[in-house]
Amino acid sequence: MYFKISKKQFFNTLSIVSRAISTFSPLPAFSGIKIEAFLDHLILTGSDSDISIQAKLDTNEEYLLEIKDTGSVVIEAKYILDIVRKIDSDDIEVEIIDGLLTKISGHSAEFKINGMSVNEYPSIDFTKPTESFTLEGEKLRTMILQTSFATSDKETRPVLTGVNFECKDTLLQCVGTDSYRLARKYITLDKSLHFNVTIPSRSLNEISKIIESEDVEIAVNDKKVQFLFDNILIQTRLIDGIYPETSRLIPQSFDYQLTIDSKDLLDAIDRASFIKNDGVSVIKFSLDEKECVLSSKSVEVGSSTEILSSASFEGNTLEISCNGRYVFDAIKYLNGSLVKFSFCGDMKPFIIQTINDDSVLQLILPVRTYA
Amino acid sequence: MYFKISKKQFFNTLSIVSRAISTFSPLPAFSGIKIEAFLDHLILTGSDSDISIQAKLDTNEEYLLEIKDTGSVVIEAKYILDIVRKIDSDDIEVEIIDGLLTKISGHSAEFKINGMSVNEYPSIDFTKPTESFTLEGEKLRTMILQTSFATSDKETRPVLTGVNFECKDTLLQCVGTDSYRLARKYITLDKSLHFNVTIPSRSLNEISKIIESEDVEIAVNDKKVQFLFDNILIQTRLIDGIYPETSRLIPQSFDYQLTIDSKDLLDAIDRASFIKNDGVSVIKFSLDEKECVLSSKSVEVGSSTEILSSASFEGNTLEISCNGRYVFDAIKYLNGSLVKFSFCGDMKPFIIQTINDDSVLQLILPVRTYA
Repeated sequence: MYFKISKKQFFNTLSIVSRAISTFSPLPAFSGIKIEAFLDHLILTGSDSDISIQAKLDTNEEYLLEIKDTGSVVIEAKYILDIVRKIDSDDIEVEIIDGLLTKISGHSAEFKINGMSVNEYPSIDFTKPTESFTLEGEKLRTMILQTSFATSDKETRPVLTGVNFECKDTLLQCVGTDSYRLARKYITLDKSLHFNVTIPSRSLNEISKIIESEDVEIAVNDKKVQFLFDNILIQTRLIDGIYPETSRLIPQSFDYQLTIDSKDLLDAIDRASFIKNDGVSVIKFSLDEKECVLSSKSVEVGSSTEILSSASFEGNTLEISCNGRYVFDAIKYLNGSLVKFSFCGDMKPFIIQTINDDSVLQLILPVRTYA
Repeated sequence: MYFKISKKQFFNTLSIVSRAISTFSPLPAFSGIKIEAFLDHLILTGSDSDISIQAKLDTNEEYLLEIKDTGSVVIEAKYILDIVRKIDSDDIEVEIIDGLLTKISGHSAEFKINGMSVNEYPSIDFTKPTESFTLEGEKLRTMILQTSFATSDKETRPVLTGVNFECKDTLLQCVGTDSYRLARKYITLDKSLHFNVTIPSRSLNEISKIIESEDVEIAVNDKKVQFLFDNILIQTRLIDGIYPETSRLIPQSFDYQLTIDSKDLLDAIDRASFIKNDGVSVIKFSLDEKECVLSSKSVEVGSSTEILSSASFEGNTLEISCNGRYVFDAIKYLNGSLVKFSFCGDMKPFIIQTINDDSVLQLILPVRTYA
């Protein structure tokens, strides 16, 4: 293996591919990036077995790629990223010089790194599922951001650690929940499809960091999902198990409605966030048509009270308490300047939406408080 | 206690005072800031017993300070900093409302925080030592930066965890060493003094972050040192024990000299820094008048070689190895565009200086290498 490539393009592609790599992989080979040089292209692969990312670089002018000899090797990701990032040269040469010893050189610097054999690298099936649809990158990213934060970080119910994608005809519903809060987003597809899969949040978060604004092709079957754009292929495993039926949890009629400036409420929740009970900041809304007050209390720390001057409320007097972090996250990811809370009682789940966008909904369960 | 103060000034002063506070203080009161309101001024104190910082705020226009009632309380530093930082108001009111319960309010937000009694706060003797001199803040900061990084972080020889300040007549010598490297800085004072004290690095580092460019008065006796500027008083304990005689360690005559562009060498060392043996990146200089080469090697990772094109060398062929991190730090804190290495043999300590500034010197011990 011997090739020459633009430092900038090589580094960018290595950075993307390395996103799949976990720091603590049980398999040594998975801490490396597999580099394969073919006659007219280079394939870079990174994986932790849950998520795999593959990039194909053609010998075109953009990459200044010249392949002088084919071959393959696996190089520890952190070493090759560090070398390529710091090398002070426009192009870089990579050459296997002895067995697995790989020379990486540019300008006056030269590194000889002990590689691993590609035979130690598990084979990954990158076959593309037959059913696929296309989404704008920006739309996909927004959908991920608005739902994945609400998933569970506990492995007790694995299915809740992912976002459920359920498609019926042209309507795609994405739901994330940790059973205390729920985020739901609807997207209309340009074709009719039927699938119901749950994608690990970790995979989605990596994907949201990689995708650009251009279109992403999403290919899905009951084993895996692939995201394809440019020269990048991201593949993730699915989470086994039946995703709970969530639609019946969402109330349909409401007796109270609070409208408030998002930033004002985020700031107020942030100010009170240091007042914690057992590590949780519980906030209480005391609402009536004259005045809306946010308060929190902890025997150990003290208390806070704040009048929400930008709030307007419709309905009878209501006192409702919930996890402040949940409301903060929900509003942050809704990403609208004005938000609307709809309540149906002090111990019933309530929903938060923006004024202009019905496609996304956040639901939060209240908590019982001390007083 | 009841006062009103500019949010900005109060926050800035709380931030400075809180720098003395350790996260893990054995004494609960030391996790707080002591606030004392007198008739015409406010005193804020933070301490971890090693370093103590006190700020005096007068009732003048700059602070918009109005004291309505005298009194004192200790408030958990992280709570009061968080509240004052996030409060959305130009001024803030602080009032003891019930025993130790302290109300902090601004705009529409109000916090009631459980304070601690000042009786629980250890009394700190802030008496000013009689001997003192004055240094420009910038000069003091540079001196600290250029010496404190070389001190030891191990408690086996406590005296090496501080910087030694030895003054004979008008010459102040500052030395930091961990016994593998040494940094020495000379400063000429405007008056004649005699003292020999060792100041903990941690205190010096906090001081370097607080001081501005204006003059700092430094008052010293054999128990403590005080740094005074503006309305701030920083006091630190000294480290007990005789500081080793270091001047005889510094070679006086040299057989080899390497001159090199600082940035080029820093970049080259940085590029090789991932090649480690037992966590240490050892670099080898292979120097002769034709070519200067930097290399490093690890059985596990691999090797690197780099020609130092900006280097010029005088003397016979020399191969010398040392800890790359030590050379990197020394050059970084010397802060000159061109540095000069003076060697007297492959197993003898060598020194690094900038071309223009004789007042500062870095000394490094070489290491024996594998090959």
